Amino acid sequence: METKTATPWLTPEQQRVWRSFLGGTTVLMDRLDRDLRATHGLSVPEYEILVRLSEAPGRSIRMAELAAAVAHSRSRVTHTIARLERENIVVRGQCSEDGRGVSAVLTDHGFSVLEAAAHTHVQGVHDYLIENADAADFVAMGRVMQNVVEALHGKNF
Amino acid sequence: METKTATPWLTPEQQRVWRSFLGGTTVLMDRLDRDLRATHGLSVPEYEILVRLSEAPGRSIRMAELAAAVAHSRSRVTHTIARLERENIVVRGQCSEDGRGVSAVLTDHGFSVLEAAAHTHVQGVHDYLIENADAADFVAMGRVMQNVVEALHGKNF
Repeated sequence: METKTATPWLTPEQQRVWRSFLGGTTVLMDRLDRDLRATHGLSVPEYEILVRLSEAPGRSIRMAELAAAVAHSRSRVTHTIARLERENIVVRGQCSEDGRGVSAVLTDHGFSVLEAAAHTHVQGVHDYLIENADAADFVAMGRVMQNVVEALHGKNF
Repeated sequence: METKTATPWLTPEQQRVWRSFLGGTTVLMDRLDRDLRATHGLSVPEYEILVRLSEAPGRSIRMAELAAAVAHSRSRVTHTIARLERENIVVRGQCSEDGRGVSAVLTDHGFSVLEAAAHTHVQGVHDYLIENADAADFVAMGRVMQNVVEALHGKNF
C-alpha cells in the first residue's frame, strides 16, 4: 500500500523527458563551453557573469547580488571572480555608495573580451538550441525553467 | 547592412527564455547534485551512469557505449568510472562476448547504493522540476531537448 511519503516514481513519459533534458543540457552546455574556452578562454558561467556586469550601472555589481543574478552560490562566484581578476577582466573594490560590501567591476579589457566572446556564444545558442526548437516549445521550456528559478532560487544559498 | 555571416543576436524573448534556461538548469542541477552528494556521496552524472548500468544485460556496458548513452565525452566517463571503481561501486573488465573493448560493470554494492540514491533523486526531480512545470510545457521541453541531443550528440566526441 502506498503512503503519502512514498517516492513519486516517474511515469515512462516523465522519465523520457527527464532523460532528454539531462542529455540535451549536457551536450548543449559542453558545446557552448568548449566554443567559448577555445576561442576566448572563458567558461559559460564566467561569460554570464561578464554579461551581467556589462549591463549594470558602472559595470559594477555587489558580489552577493551577482551570485543571486546568475543563480550561483556565493563561494562559487567568489572563486570565479578571483580567476577573472587574475586575467584583468574584473577588479574588486568597495561599493562607492555606502562603503558596505565588495563589488566586482568589469574592466575595459574585460568589456573587450566580452564583446568578442558574445559573437561566439550567441551564434552557438542560436545554432545548437534555437535552430533545433519549435518556437512554441522553446517558449514553453522558458516557462518551465522560469518557474524552477522562482521556486528554488535563493533557497539554501 | 547585414550579411549572411552576421551574428544572429537573440530577440528579447529568446534572451529571456535563454536566461531562464540557464538559471533554471543551474539551480536545479545544483540542488539535485547537493542532495545526492549529501545523502549518498554521488554526483548526478555518476548517478546517471549507475542507472544505465543497472538496466543493461549483466549490468555491464562498454565504455564507449556508456559515454554515448549519457552524452559525455570518453575521457569524462573514464574519469568517472575510475572514481566509482575506487568506491567498489563499479568494476572494469574485458567484454566477455568477443574480447574487444573494456566494459564497466555495476557491483552488487553499487546496485544497493543506486537503489538508495534513486529515492532521493527521483523525489528531487519531482519536487524541483515536475511539480513546477505545466504538464504540456514539460513535454514541450522534452521535445526541444531531444532535438538538441539528436542534433549535437556524437559530434566532436
